[in-house]
Amino acid sequence: MSSPAADLVIRNASELCTMRPVEGRGEAVLGSISGGSLACRSGQVTWVGPDAELARNVALGATTRVVDAAGCTVTPGLVDCHTHVVFAGDRADEFSLRCEGATYLEIARRGGGIGSTVRATREVGEDRLVELALPRLARLLEFGITTAEAKSGYALNLPDELKMLRAVARLPTLQPIELVPTLLCAHAVPPEHAQTREAYVDLCVKEIVPEVARLGLARFCEAFVEQSAFTVEEGRRILGRGKELGLVPRLHADQMSAMGASELAAELGAATADHLECITDAGIAALAKAKVSAVLVPTSTLFLKQATYAPGRRLWDAGLNVALATNLNPGSAMTENANLSLALACLFNGLTPAEALWAFTRGGARALGLDARLGSIEPGRQADLVVHACPSHRHLAYHFAVSHVRTVIKRGAVVLDRPAAPCAAA
Amino acid sequence: MSSPAADLVIRNASELCTMRPVEGRGEAVLGSISGGSLACRSGQVTWVGPDAELARNVALGATTRVVDAAGCTVTPGLVDCHTHVVFAGDRADEFSLRCEGATYLEIARRGGGIGSTVRATREVGEDRLVELALPRLARLLEFGITTAEAKSGYALNLPDELKMLRAVARLPTLQPIELVPTLLCAHAVPPEHAQTREAYVDLCVKEIVPEVARLGLARFCEAFVEQSAFTVEEGRRILGRGKELGLVPRLHADQMSAMGASELAAELGAATADHLECITDAGIAALAKAKVSAVLVPTSTLFLKQATYAPGRRLWDAGLNVALATNLNPGSAMTENANLSLALACLFNGLTPAEALWAFTRGGARALGLDARLGSIEPGRQADLVVHACPSHRHLAYHFAVSHVRTVIKRGAVVLDRPAAPCAAA
Repeated sequence: MSSPAADLVIRNASELCTMRPVEGRGEAVLGSISGGSLACRSGQVTWVGPDAELARNVALGATTRVVDAAGCTVTPGLVDCHTHVVFAGDRADEFSLRCEGATYLEIARRGGGIGSTVRATREVGEDRLVELALPRLARLLEFGITTAEAKSGYALNLPDELKMLRAVARLPTLQPIELVPTLLCAHAVPPEHAQTREAYVDLCVKEIVPEVARLGLARFCEAFVEQSAFTVEEGRRILGRGKELGLVPRLHADQMSAMGASELAAELGAATADHLECITDAGIAALAKAKVSAVLVPTSTLFLKQATYAPGRRLWDAGLNVALATNLNPGSAMTENANLSLALACLFNGLTPAEALWAFTRGGARALGLDARLGSIEPGRQADLVVHACPSHRHLAYHFAVSHVRTVIKRGAVVLDRPAAPCAAA
Repeated sequence: MSSPAADLVIRNASELCTMRPVEGRGEAVLGSISGGSLACRSGQVTWVGPDAELARNVALGATTRVVDAAGCTVTPGLVDCHTHVVFAGDRADEFSLRCEGATYLEIARRGGGIGSTVRATREVGEDRLVELALPRLARLLEFGITTAEAKSGYALNLPDELKMLRAVARLPTLQPIELVPTLLCAHAVPPEHAQTREAYVDLCVKEIVPEVARLGLARFCEAFVEQSAFTVEEGRRILGRGKELGLVPRLHADQMSAMGASELAAELGAATADHLECITDAGIAALAKAKVSAVLVPTSTLFLKQATYAPGRRLWDAGLNVALATNLNPGSAMTENANLSLALACLFNGLTPAEALWAFTRGGARALGLDARLGSIEPGRQADLVVHACPSHRHLAYHFAVSHVRTVIKRGAVVLDRPAAPCAAA
């Protein structure tokens, strides 16, 4: 063969999930190859197919790294399209108070809630934010996440929102996970504007959003439209301004109540509507018509003990792109455990294990507008790959809340290797 | 000082949870020492106290290993008093079917349910059972578990129940976790006795229980009293026979329905009643009066999507010894994630983070009758210890479903060390 030798080859996976199909239900979405192999060169996948066809399609050289995936499942790197990975402080004490029966109001009076994260995040410098995010990203990587979205929104003033986004921009130089930044100045009304919320919306529209857009520090602009946060009209103003300036809208929508946030997402042509625990049929129809991606974040639904999970099954069956994410954040989902999200999506959002995996790979990549490059295993796509030490994708949700990850590959390079990781099953 | 040098010293933990108190609510149960240190020699704890008092109480020698626990939480090794860690096969396909909407009956018709684990477990030899259990135990250790109970009950005939218990007996020679064996021949009526259940109860009473007792292969004898398993009368016969022969009774009780299983546990003076999702007030009163330990297993409550979790708060407040366990098993809780159990116990069983940790250490040790040796950090107790890379016990439940474990010590020896483990918080 005249083609140059592969940099890296993964051979003979028990199941290789390409995620090539973008339609279907159940396991049809996986594009599975039994005994699957693949080759990478220069950070891209160059070939995928049955191991029996590897030799006549791929040139192996002296420097080709060969990963034996016998008994393992190979998937694209997970794309976590909803995280708040950058912040300071923690809310462990608040959680204890809550367990002891303190009400939301009592916790707020004792300095808890999002306000405590805002105080802590404003107080520290950019370097410290970077330092605090690194172990969280290391844990996300241990669960196979190779790309993550990262939001601002715990600073809520111009200098500190910029500080958060600069931290997001630096982190990919320090560890393997690729990050996609979102400006979330519309996360909450900051305490200094409790009596002057219009002034804060003005600040967002006239200063924060334009400056972030000018500096190119975010791809998305997001608003939390909820009774405790922003109204539909306020969300429309902030996201509309962002859109004018090239920031793609996203919405925290219908989490605690249905107040028209999904409809606003549709109206604005938002990339995503996230949470959706309380979405109505009209909301689903609006999202479907406008081709807004639906982002499920079931770990926070669990942690907040909400009565109802987002209707993942109905969202999927309505033809939406469904994505699944950790929602890693200090208030409602302090966990990097992507595997738990997969299980909860199956148990409570109504997805199958195959659909949940699709939602955390290709679905997440589509939600971020990156599915031409990420989220599937195909020639020409970026070689972001995970070897899981279990024989099928079904084990990822079934053998729940533990990492099955043996090897993580980012842009064709092995960035995590745990050959001694216990294998889930024979 | 004339005392011999310590083998190992842990210094200056942000929080050292001794678990010395055995009464109380909330954080009173922890016996916390801020800036706590301890010393071990010959596998036992020899001293515990504030770091400032270490020098004048403990002799350090050239061979003393010193573990710096600054910023960390030190707890007793976790005691997982309810596991089914030994079995063959898996039920990942069954989980997928369930997610696709298959009913319990359809799954049973397609060979799923406990019957599939029984078939797989009967088919393999003792060596294979040992081999399959080792990675599960490795994962339990990664969550800080240093002692685990292990049940038979997936064989349901004499030779294969013995095979399971021999596997349990061998495993402690191959890895660090100490195991406590339970005979659970009364787990289900095996398929060959579907029409002759009395004959199976006879087999238990006349052959399996006596032979296991004679060989000394189990400490406990347990029965699953439930509509799908055994009646109260059948449970009484099997456990009564075990008790005569020195096997301490335990019961899977009130999981799906309240049919008198807790009352039977009280009548028999059982060590534990486990599950308890459906326990009544009368059942709680009976357990309290008879001093039966209540074992919570919330990961299976979650995985089975049960409407109600066991009333941990009421059990605690009734004065029972409450224990918390993983219930690791292939059907309803295929997870080694002890940290998830801690969080679920807080969210859904009504315990505080402190009480949940107590339940997974001292509570578990008391349930197994081992609290004179395990489950607390006191001079004279076995040096089973965990250093968690987080600043307080509250983070274990708050920063949920991830392992915070940095170092695990069993009988005074470091058996797991992950100095690079990401720290939960600064």
